[in-house]
Amino acid sequence: MASEPFDAVSVIRTKRDGGRIPDPEIDWVIDAYTRGAVAEEQMSALAMAILLNGMQPAELSRWTDAMIASGKRLDLSAVSRPTTDKHSTGGVGDKITLPLAPLVASLGAAVPQLSGRGLGHTGGTLDKLESIPGWRASLSSAEFIDQLNTVGAVVCAAGDDLAPADRKLYALRDVTGTVEAIPLIASSIMSKKIAEGSSALVLDVKVGSGAFMKNLADARELAETMVALGTAAGTHTVALLTDMSTPLGRTAGNALEVRESVEVLAGGGPADVVQLTVALATEMLAGVGITDVDPAAALADGRAMDVWRRMISAQGGDPDAPLPTAAERHVIAAPATGVLTRLDAYAVGVAAWRLGAGRARKEDAVSPAAGVVMLAKPGDQVHAGQPLLELHADDAGRFARAEQALDGAFGIAAEGDSERASQGAPPLVLDRVTA
Amino acid sequence: MASEPFDAVSVIRTKRDGGRIPDPEIDWVIDAYTRGAVAEEQMSALAMAILLNGMQPAELSRWTDAMIASGKRLDLSAVSRPTTDKHSTGGVGDKITLPLAPLVASLGAAVPQLSGRGLGHTGGTLDKLESIPGWRASLSSAEFIDQLNTVGAVVCAAGDDLAPADRKLYALRDVTGTVEAIPLIASSIMSKKIAEGSSALVLDVKVGSGAFMKNLADARELAETMVALGTAAGTHTVALLTDMSTPLGRTAGNALEVRESVEVLAGGGPADVVQLTVALATEMLAGVGITDVDPAAALADGRAMDVWRRMISAQGGDPDAPLPTAAERHVIAAPATGVLTRLDAYAVGVAAWRLGAGRARKEDAVSPAAGVVMLAKPGDQVHAGQPLLELHADDAGRFARAEQALDGAFGIAAEGDSERASQGAPPLVLDRVTA
Repeated sequence: MASEPFDAVSVIRTKRDGGRIPDPEIDWVIDAYTRGAVAEEQMSALAMAILLNGMQPAELSRWTDAMIASGKRLDLSAVSRPTTDKHSTGGVGDKITLPLAPLVASLGAAVPQLSGRGLGHTGGTLDKLESIPGWRASLSSAEFIDQLNTVGAVVCAAGDDLAPADRKLYALRDVTGTVEAIPLIASSIMSKKIAEGSSALVLDVKVGSGAFMKNLADARELAETMVALGTAAGTHTVALLTDMSTPLGRTAGNALEVRESVEVLAGGGPADVVQLTVALATEMLAGVGITDVDPAAALADGRAMDVWRRMISAQGGDPDAPLPTAAERHVIAAPATGVLTRLDAYAVGVAAWRLGAGRARKEDAVSPAAGVVMLAKPGDQVHAGQPLLELHADDAGRFARAEQALDGAFGIAAEGDSERASQGAPPLVLDRVTA
Repeated sequence: MASEPFDAVSVIRTKRDGGRIPDPEIDWVIDAYTRGAVAEEQMSALAMAILLNGMQPAELSRWTDAMIASGKRLDLSAVSRPTTDKHSTGGVGDKITLPLAPLVASLGAAVPQLSGRGLGHTGGTLDKLESIPGWRASLSSAEFIDQLNTVGAVVCAAGDDLAPADRKLYALRDVTGTVEAIPLIASSIMSKKIAEGSSALVLDVKVGSGAFMKNLADARELAETMVALGTAAGTHTVALLTDMSTPLGRTAGNALEVRESVEVLAGGGPADVVQLTVALATEMLAGVGITDVDPAAALADGRAMDVWRRMISAQGGDPDAPLPTAAERHVIAAPATGVLTRLDAYAVGVAAWRLGAGRARKEDAVSPAAGVVMLAKPGDQVHAGQPLLELHADDAGRFARAEQALDGAFGIAAEGDSERASQGAPPLVLDRVTA
């Protein structure tokens, strides 16, 4: 320790007492933590002090840069097209990346998406794609660049050298009650996205029961913080605040969501998934100056589907192979007649998780076939006894606990109750945040 | 972890969000931390949340009880006299325990003091006593009780089973910037003092540059918190707030302070040391109902000295043996003529530490002979060139850095500057805090 230029306790004290950590100390503390010269219990105290006392914008920007500097930045200079990416803060039934990446690639940009696996009640994009027979998440750097040039879209696993400080810090925050710090959430996401090196970035910040951010004020603060970080790093960054009080589309589960995404790529699919895919594609393309395009048309006329098939094939997947289906199904029927006013995203997410679609620990395997099919969505008219939800699992023993999660998760308003019945689905895009 | 009744993250979140940790969770988190089932990084985040969000009185009382329950309470039921103890929050030249314990014993109470070694700029009572040839700090439980009955005073090392949670938590706080949390300071001190089992307790809470608490408001808050904890635990507890802007007495260093303490026990010694010893003795005795006594007389007439000699002998020490003296001395002379207005306690403490009287790490050895002799104190008239401070060390190479610590540590006001010259020594006892 004699050769360390700073002292962890002094860095912690600065933040504990509400000060701004000087830039050289930020650089040092992140580097030293990554090397193990700052102990887990020291970073934990610092994370709690950050959670409770916040960070100034320039301080957080430096913190994020230091996280990026803990690993390698991707070099996208060999990619001929403009590069643009999207990040979602996570929701239930959020399969948007699947139709979105090929759609944006079909309109002239390249999408270099490094993605993750799911933990808890929200599914992970890699888990979804891995339900496609043969598809693999790992690519070499050369394969990654080559696929961006030839296909225009890659969704693959991030390498261990992308912001390794974040991996270590995230695991620590998870066990120390410091996950919910907006500066730490923002720098965790943005360090990886900035290191990924795309020219433009669109953030889909989810708000509601199924999202990490339960209310609009917190989501807006997170969005503004991330947009500021991206802008400071020279990445064109925009955020949409989108509703996650009810699941996106009509499926939550890995193969179930791939199937629904393919429907969207075939010009069909649920209206909300199509709407959000088009909105995000428009932003991603505008971020790299491509404005004279019609994403909805590219979904309708098969251009996006064509890129999808090539994107899946390039990573060893067979786009024509039948997807896994669940051995066991269980129907939950509507208890009354009326308008479905509410279908809670968190409850559906937990149910899908308990059915086997998600994992409780990183090392757990997920079931490709398990999940929830929503046969009605808020705003739909339902009749007593009509199937409302269909639970899919590999093992019928999972239905009881999944059904428990759905207890009280939906509301049906009688037709006479006009006020409640008129609620229907909330608007999907709640706001747009720019620098 | 499957068998744990609570979850550390949920306890951390409660405190992080400003709530009160429920009693069963307090009991669990202290016990589980002591066992290692709550990780260091989790306790560290909790400690930072406590530092920033505080604890309610009943919550802190339960926390303190849980720390006590992590180890054994001393059983003083076999001690025939009423038991009373003192704790000082630590200062420079604070040798008060040495004359105080035998003085109180000479007046009819028993003093069961479990003490510690010094770390940083304040010396430890055991370090001081260990400069006496033959004296040993470790006693068995039987020896401890026997000495209380026969001599009436014991100053010895605390066993490993006294509030072991505190030992672990203190080491963690030291490296995580969470030392300065008043609830944690108070529960650390009081868990050990309550476990020690004396009927009465007097707290000497130091205020000023040489103390842990630099201002009166913080010291008062700490004193009130500790008095409330002691009272809640059924221990008669009183605190004195005392000045530590300048060192106590005229010596800082182990054997140097023993020599000065023996002067006090012989009826002489510096007025401030005598004053504080008598004030604390009066409180300690009053706490167990002994009020018709004259501590000053017991110092003057040799009763206290008699107990001192028996106390040292009982622990293997030779009260007549010559104390170690330093091989090297270095004088700092007064740079001007006038009244000494200021002699900074922290600077003198750091100088003594650098001369070898203190340790930087627990495993370091201390020099028994090293330290600082103060030939003048604030309020004294000094002449340019007159010796002001005498530095003692085993190695002359230590003088330069010690002298650096004393740079700017004292002030001399010319006689014409009547306002500054009249400042002199501040009052010693600043306030008294009771339940």
